[in-house]
Amino acid sequence: MQILYKSDPQRGALWQQWLAQHAPDIQLHLWPESGNPHEIEMLIAWQPPERLMETWPNLKALLSVGAGADQFDLAALPPDLPVVRMIEPGLTQGMVEYVTFAVLGLHRDMVRYLQQQREAQWLAHSVRPAATRRVGVMGLGELGQAALRQLATLGFDCAGWSRTPRQLDGVACFHGDGQLSAFLARSDILVCLLPLTAETRGLLNRDLFSQLPPGAALVQAGRGAQLHHADLLAALDSGQLGAAVIDVTDPEPLPPSHPFWRHPAIWLTPHIASQTQNESAVAALLENLRRYQRGEPMIGLIDRARGY
Amino acid sequence: MQILYKSDPQRGALWQQWLAQHAPDIQLHLWPESGNPHEIEMLIAWQPPERLMETWPNLKALLSVGAGADQFDLAALPPDLPVVRMIEPGLTQGMVEYVTFAVLGLHRDMVRYLQQQREAQWLAHSVRPAATRRVGVMGLGELGQAALRQLATLGFDCAGWSRTPRQLDGVACFHGDGQLSAFLARSDILVCLLPLTAETRGLLNRDLFSQLPPGAALVQAGRGAQLHHADLLAALDSGQLGAAVIDVTDPEPLPPSHPFWRHPAIWLTPHIASQTQNESAVAALLENLRRYQRGEPMIGLIDRARGY
Repeated sequence: MQILYKSDPQRGALWQQWLAQHAPDIQLHLWPESGNPHEIEMLIAWQPPERLMETWPNLKALLSVGAGADQFDLAALPPDLPVVRMIEPGLTQGMVEYVTFAVLGLHRDMVRYLQQQREAQWLAHSVRPAATRRVGVMGLGELGQAALRQLATLGFDCAGWSRTPRQLDGVACFHGDGQLSAFLARSDILVCLLPLTAETRGLLNRDLFSQLPPGAALVQAGRGAQLHHADLLAALDSGQLGAAVIDVTDPEPLPPSHPFWRHPAIWLTPHIASQTQNESAVAALLENLRRYQRGEPMIGLIDRARGY
Repeated sequence: MQILYKSDPQRGALWQQWLAQHAPDIQLHLWPESGNPHEIEMLIAWQPPERLMETWPNLKALLSVGAGADQFDLAALPPDLPVVRMIEPGLTQGMVEYVTFAVLGLHRDMVRYLQQQREAQWLAHSVRPAATRRVGVMGLGELGQAALRQLATLGFDCAGWSRTPRQLDGVACFHGDGQLSAFLARSDILVCLLPLTAETRGLLNRDLFSQLPPGAALVQAGRGAQLHHADLLAALDSGQLGAAVIDVTDPEPLPPSHPFWRHPAIWLTPHIASQTQNESAVAALLENLRRYQRGEPMIGLIDRARGY
């Protein structure tokens, strides 16, 4: 099987080498080298080139190198072309680490302490037991479930919210528009891991913030376009929100003049919560290619109707 | 039984009320009120008053309200007076949270990212899997063991070092002076949870830092007098250490002019890693008083010879 890779060249070289060793029947071409266009069955990319089917008439699927596929313009792709996002343990573990770090930091007032450090102020604040800290995770796919499992080991009072009903051990599960308010009302720390869809675009706005307990905190590790920047700043300045840890923004990178950079209640990281890990991802890729060859559905297949 | 409490008055009032409800046979006096001095059997304090035995001739034990007893001048206390430090789940959990936060933050380059935030710099760095990050915890008592259990759930490559041999599941255990170098050589992130003794005073110095892998990081949540401040600054400035998260210093509070406050590779918190939690601590206190009444050894009894 011939597949074409168009993304970070260093990772591509590593994958090519790994596949040559572990799956010699699969040939990975590194863009712009692409072999015989008629023989390419898979394109794996962050941003695909235009006119896919004209260039690779026998393309059977488009694979994302990242956890999301929202960077693809789905409407511009052939409607029957399967689109697959990356699900691999390294990506999941990275998100678990980031969310655990951010939730612990917010739980333990670290945004305030590091601000105090800048002011050379030695001042302790009282600690609340984790069992009384209500953490709510929006998005209960692979990443959300793994994050909740880790947070539970730290004793937090955990809840989750998803579009469709879910049942998770030890997690109060909410779903749909009808249960969103109840979920928000019990989220002292709100963690957004939602995919970007028409429904989640702009979701983190003034209306949503107003439904959180006063002084709540936000962890935004979903997608940039979900967060209304001016509403976040207003909620922080009014005290409706106490602090925010933000990994994704719209646009990225954020311009140097943007107020997030210097806000004392914001920790800003440059979209690093979770990155595809080369070694574990290529093994997950191979497993998916084998599934395709066996005629089984690939893991991470996008439902075009719901957008993720 | 009559016991005297001399520490934070708010906590004292809460403990008095709780004990009145759960153990009416035990009477807690809140300093300076102290009932009949001849009937006081226990003193629970952070700093005891002078001339203990002259004031309370029937004192049977001195109990610390904190995890350590190094604030007591043991030499000034009657040699046969039992001294007990606080071991309670809230204190342990607080330390687990702090250490997990700090280790994740160092593992994921967060000191660097928050410094980049100040400079409005959007720049991602590559991530290492937790399984390849070697974390070493010094001090394998209640706190060190609990911290290692949590770090193991995140997949870190964990080791521990203690004065005397220990065996812990999934942790490479080192002990004594003879194995310190080997332990340090494999600690990318070194966490100090040691008690303050004659042997650990000044232990975190240039000689120790030079035995860590270049670019290693430090979490200091032991006792202030263990850390040589000038040596830490030199190690950070030479690159021998990459970053440090410091919760305890000598002196405390640190003077506003101290260089730790403004060092870009230091996160400084005001001795808040772990605090005695009022609710869980009074239950642990009662359990210890009952052990004393039954003639059993109290939990947290200090070995005067080793100093903790």
